[in-house]
Amino acid sequence: MLIVQLAIACGVLAVIYGIVTSGQVLKLSPGNARMQDIAAAIQEGARAYLARQYTTIAVVGVIMVVLVFFLLGTVSAVGFLIGALLSGATGFVGMNISVKANVRTAEAARTSLQAGLTTAFRSGAITGMLVAGLGLLAISVFFGYLIGPAGHAPTDRIVINALVALSFGASLISIFARLGGGIFTKAADVGADLVGKVEAGIPEDDPRNPAVIADNVGDNVGDCAGMAADLFETYVVTLGVTMVSIALFVKNEDVLALMSLPLLVGGVCIITSIIGTYMVRLGSGSIMGALYKGFLTSALLAVPAIYGATKFALGDLNAVIGGGREAAGPDVAGAVAAGAGSFTGMDLFWCMMIGLAVTGALVWITEYYTGTNYRPVKSIAKASVTGHGTNVIQGLAISLESTALPTLVIVVAVIGAYQLAGVIGIAFGATSMLALAGMVVALDAYGPVTDNAGGIAEMAGLEDSVRERTDALDAVGNTTKAVTKGYAIGSAALAALVLFGAYTADLKEYFPTLIVDFSLSNPYVIVGLLLGALLPFVFGAFGMTAVGRAAGAVVEDVRDQFRSNPGIMAGTSRPNYARTVDLVTKAAIREMIVPSLLPVLAPVAVFFVIRLVAGPANGFASLGALLLGVIVSGLFVAISMTSGGGAWDNAKKYIEDGNHGGKGSEAHKAAVTGDTVGDPYKDTAGPAVNPMIKITNIVALLLLAALAAHG
Amino acid sequence: MLIVQLAIACGVLAVIYGIVTSGQVLKLSPGNARMQDIAAAIQEGARAYLARQYTTIAVVGVIMVVLVFFLLGTVSAVGFLIGALLSGATGFVGMNISVKANVRTAEAARTSLQAGLTTAFRSGAITGMLVAGLGLLAISVFFGYLIGPAGHAPTDRIVINALVALSFGASLISIFARLGGGIFTKAADVGADLVGKVEAGIPEDDPRNPAVIADNVGDNVGDCAGMAADLFETYVVTLGVTMVSIALFVKNEDVLALMSLPLLVGGVCIITSIIGTYMVRLGSGSIMGALYKGFLTSALLAVPAIYGATKFALGDLNAVIGGGREAAGPDVAGAVAAGAGSFTGMDLFWCMMIGLAVTGALVWITEYYTGTNYRPVKSIAKASVTGHGTNVIQGLAISLESTALPTLVIVVAVIGAYQLAGVIGIAFGATSMLALAGMVVALDAYGPVTDNAGGIAEMAGLEDSVRERTDALDAVGNTTKAVTKGYAIGSAALAALVLFGAYTADLKEYFPTLIVDFSLSNPYVIVGLLLGALLPFVFGAFGMTAVGRAAGAVVEDVRDQFRSNPGIMAGTSRPNYARTVDLVTKAAIREMIVPSLLPVLAPVAVFFVIRLVAGPANGFASLGALLLGVIVSGLFVAISMTSGGGAWDNAKKYIEDGNHGGKGSEAHKAAVTGDTVGDPYKDTAGPAVNPMIKITNIVALLLLAALAAHG
Repeated sequence: MLIVQLAIACGVLAVIYGIVTSGQVLKLSPGNARMQDIAAAIQEGARAYLARQYTTIAVVGVIMVVLVFFLLGTVSAVGFLIGALLSGATGFVGMNISVKANVRTAEAARTSLQAGLTTAFRSGAITGMLVAGLGLLAISVFFGYLIGPAGHAPTDRIVINALVALSFGASLISIFARLGGGIFTKAADVGADLVGKVEAGIPEDDPRNPAVIADNVGDNVGDCAGMAADLFETYVVTLGVTMVSIALFVKNEDVLALMSLPLLVGGVCIITSIIGTYMVRLGSGSIMGALYKGFLTSALLAVPAIYGATKFALGDLNAVIGGGREAAGPDVAGAVAAGAGSFTGMDLFWCMMIGLAVTGALVWITEYYTGTNYRPVKSIAKASVTGHGTNVIQGLAISLESTALPTLVIVVAVIGAYQLAGVIGIAFGATSMLALAGMVVALDAYGPVTDNAGGIAEMAGLEDSVRERTDALDAVGNTTKAVTKGYAIGSAALAALVLFGAYTADLKEYFPTLIVDFSLSNPYVIVGLLLGALLPFVFGAFGMTAVGRAAGAVVEDVRDQFRSNPGIMAGTSRPNYARTVDLVTKAAIREMIVPSLLPVLAPVAVFFVIRLVAGPANGFASLGALLLGVIVSGLFVAISMTSGGGAWDNAKKYIEDGNHGGKGSEAHKAAVTGDTVGDPYKDTAGPAVNPMIKITNIVALLLLAALAAHG
Repeated sequence: MLIVQLAIACGVLAVIYGIVTSGQVLKLSPGNARMQDIAAAIQEGARAYLARQYTTIAVVGVIMVVLVFFLLGTVSAVGFLIGALLSGATGFVGMNISVKANVRTAEAARTSLQAGLTTAFRSGAITGMLVAGLGLLAISVFFGYLIGPAGHAPTDRIVINALVALSFGASLISIFARLGGGIFTKAADVGADLVGKVEAGIPEDDPRNPAVIADNVGDNVGDCAGMAADLFETYVVTLGVTMVSIALFVKNEDVLALMSLPLLVGGVCIITSIIGTYMVRLGSGSIMGALYKGFLTSALLAVPAIYGATKFALGDLNAVIGGGREAAGPDVAGAVAAGAGSFTGMDLFWCMMIGLAVTGALVWITEYYTGTNYRPVKSIAKASVTGHGTNVIQGLAISLESTALPTLVIVVAVIGAYQLAGVIGIAFGATSMLALAGMVVALDAYGPVTDNAGGIAEMAGLEDSVRERTDALDAVGNTTKAVTKGYAIGSAALAALVLFGAYTADLKEYFPTLIVDFSLSNPYVIVGLLLGALLPFVFGAFGMTAVGRAAGAVVEDVRDQFRSNPGIMAGTSRPNYARTVDLVTKAAIREMIVPSLLPVLAPVAVFFVIRLVAGPANGFASLGALLLGVIVSGLFVAISMTSGGGAWDNAKKYIEDGNHGGKGSEAHKAAVTGDTVGDPYKDTAGPAVNPMIKITNIVALLLLAALAAHG
């Protein structure tokens, strides 16, 4: 219990960091009246969107909480509510900081690059620490209450179900937030670009473009609020599933210490992340170098911190833990036995080192595929010289190729962690990846702030040097944004394997007499794999279509404003920004609902249909295979989309830096097309695959629990 | 044996049909001197390319045949040679007919649309019947020799290995042909379009474009020769694996009759296909309607023909066949037992009806996703109005979406066939799909002929009505080409499941004491699934990059020709067509080698690495999972690419028909970009996934046999 309390303390520390740093950021000058005007318009739009989004999600949430209450009882319903509310809160707070930091970053960038960087990064760090801190608090306080005041045993089914329900709440909100925000931001971005840059020939963020405020609102509700909710979900689900798998696999006296360890690891890494944030300084190097200094500090300090946490929680690191194999009975199937195979604290430490190494490798690979210094982006830029078509072809080639190295890294990590400590080892690998979430989110959330700052500088007519500085800050944002997504989906792959392990263990526990054949020779397993693999494709199609359709509506709206009010282009009258914001808001909300429900309903539908056709055992086999099918194809769909999109974006930036003819050249036009295509790839469809995978898995676990309780 | 002889007779009939119809086509007028000149240039280029391609493949082929000889003996080596040589021959003959029919089609189109259609379709039908006929002859003669004069039992390991080696020969050649031809045709096409239509502003097939002959050569070496080799492979592998699975699963007195049945089904369907070819007449309807009349006739006649063949081969259709479960021993694992579960002749008949239904459904779905009359193509055309970016976004959305219905159809078919007759049922479903290959290939191979005819008409300056007629014929070619690819990959999904069944059965037979855990709970299974799923992505990346790079080289070459010889654009001097053809030839050959070897080497590498890390049982588990991983992701990659590409192409055609501003509008320019992107999607990377999947599976079977023989 002491360990849980320490974790809670670290979570509180993160929140305090957030409050203190917020104070520092808000104290800074918000610039002149024009800047504040613009910022106010962005704030208003972002708040209006988020209010509407949360109202809509609330309807779904209420239905779900009632369902969870009737199927699994009060405690699970409370867990669901905590997950859902905090996921929403994380997005809301992150967005609120972001819409205030943007104008202050623009103002700070008038002084120096360093001042701009500091302001933007601090605001990102607030969001980052809140994601990690609130995530940690959600689980550790709830868990602490359940095993303390409420008096449940840590492996009690009520605790396990509550943790799963908590994850479900977080996931459900986050898929809506990721997708709704993603559709908003990219519909506005693509629409604004098409009608502004391409048709009217006015620069990005030109105040004459009626979609320009919507574009800036999008940065905040998509790239900031949506991303924060997504990473909150990833954090909660990863730690939660690690604890659940321990509860299911390790049935002995070590279980409480083991279940608390992920919380403590999360806690100490919040401290190393906070230290890391203070290392983000330009010095003589590049902006990326400054950010990496922070990241590396957090990651390197995490090594001794995790070692200490493990030692503190488990005591003798060489003592054998586990032995659940005997406790769980001799009839337990492969996964369970493997998951509970004996291991030592040192084994777990090494598994967590594997997690850190995976994080480092994914960061490096993503930088390679999306950075302007390497072959992939350069090849897309070069292909732009021969036209739109070759740009897109090469971009698609890179997007397909970019899946290879991450997959190999994940495969090596799975093998390594499994050989050390079975399924539990994989779970701890995922946990240590997520332990760095505070820092990773900080790097990501700083991006939209600088993007907004650039927009405000442009619209307020600030001196050119400001825009140059914010552009420089924004450019690395493409890579850091891609990094977060690769990292989230990579950790999702590990978490999904653990979730599948939990699924098989649950199945054994709930239906001990049912023999489920998960062998690849069972055609219902193949059917499940195929249907699971289909989900990310259909989901991606929904996301892409939604952006295309909404962006088309933006184009029509802007054209109409230009037509009916010629004063706009002349610069004599102000466009109706709010009308465009409102249009995008409605479109995004409308388009997010069906795809978000897909991963909730598909597992349930597949189970019942196959059960009808081929009996309950094959129904469970298909459902299990579906869980793996969705990760097997989702990993590739998500990585190809996020890396490919980042590469396209930076290929454009690379050309804008004066290569292949620079701005205005034919190559640049082709690169703008690639960038446009990459937008929904990397910011709508791709990242939303991550919560989708988790929801599918969690729904399956909840379905099992509901079936066990009610037949 | 009588059944095998009947099948041989049907194969001979197909060859006779080919010879007779060739005579009819060649008797037609080849047009005026200018037309013959152009046709000669195309012929020369196509022959030069194919000669070079086959020389290169021969080097790989010789290495492989030596390997097969040393690892598996003479008979398997001979099987490999037969498969390889006939696969090459099919492509060669198909190409030769196609390069002679093109000019005759152009000439015939001067008379009427019907005359043009008849000439082009007959030439396609020759290729179609040769694919089916030579495929059937290859297996049935070889099998007849082995169980007749050579005196082997049908289930003898030497026969099984020989059939697998035969399939390997066909697959290996076909992946090179598909990929090499695909790179050639699309590099030339994209290059010619970029520099001609987009840069120089001259129409497609303008004789001033130095890449125009290369483009027309590409139609013949890619869409005709490559496609024919691919479908030959699909035919041989599907029938071969059906026979192999029967030999492995059914260990009783019915086995010879059962193994001969796929051959007879192939035989009778050749007859129904030949009848169908005579039904392709315009009448009052559309061109597509005329083609469908032929297809429907073949498919409907196939129902009684297959019934008769089954009755003839098996006698009493209600007698129970199988019972191999007992023969194979009680320790046989799930798949084997299921595969050998008892079934009746009637069950097999219904499985084959499922195969026919799947073919029909896939044709209909492909038409929906690529035809100009339906929502998908119209939505891409509409999105073109707002620019290049939205065209590509919507095209990608459609390409992702287009995977859904085919997957559902395949899932339903797998469940249905499996419930009727286990793995053998799935195999017979695949067999009846392929039985219609003659007709399907005929519909496909007619496309490049009309495409070429249009090019010749343009270059020879024939009257506009000719080009209009060939354009009308060519337009439906986009759909029929997409149909073939969807059909091939759909059958590959079924065949891959059967191949996996064969793999597990082989494993049991070769290593009876080794317990291999194919359960999804085994992390080495997950590792295999992930690595398998990665292959189509990497393979697709190679294909796309190759086309982009080679097309870029074409653009450079053409620009150089325009620069150094201004007479070309003025129309006063002839471009150096041969130089461009030669450049594309070299590029295509160079780029095809590495990706083609990927599916050969990957399974071997994965097996040995995992064996080293985690022992032989896990090595085999990973390898088995890899086989399913490659089909699980390959199905989606292939369908999304081929349907998406077809939809992009037809969206352009839809706009050219006068919608959204018609030719020359901004929407049209955007649609040209989409078409360019779709080119390597649908004609290079996408279709080559089909042989890739099969090679991976076959290599695994051969690896097992080699390991069993040599440890």
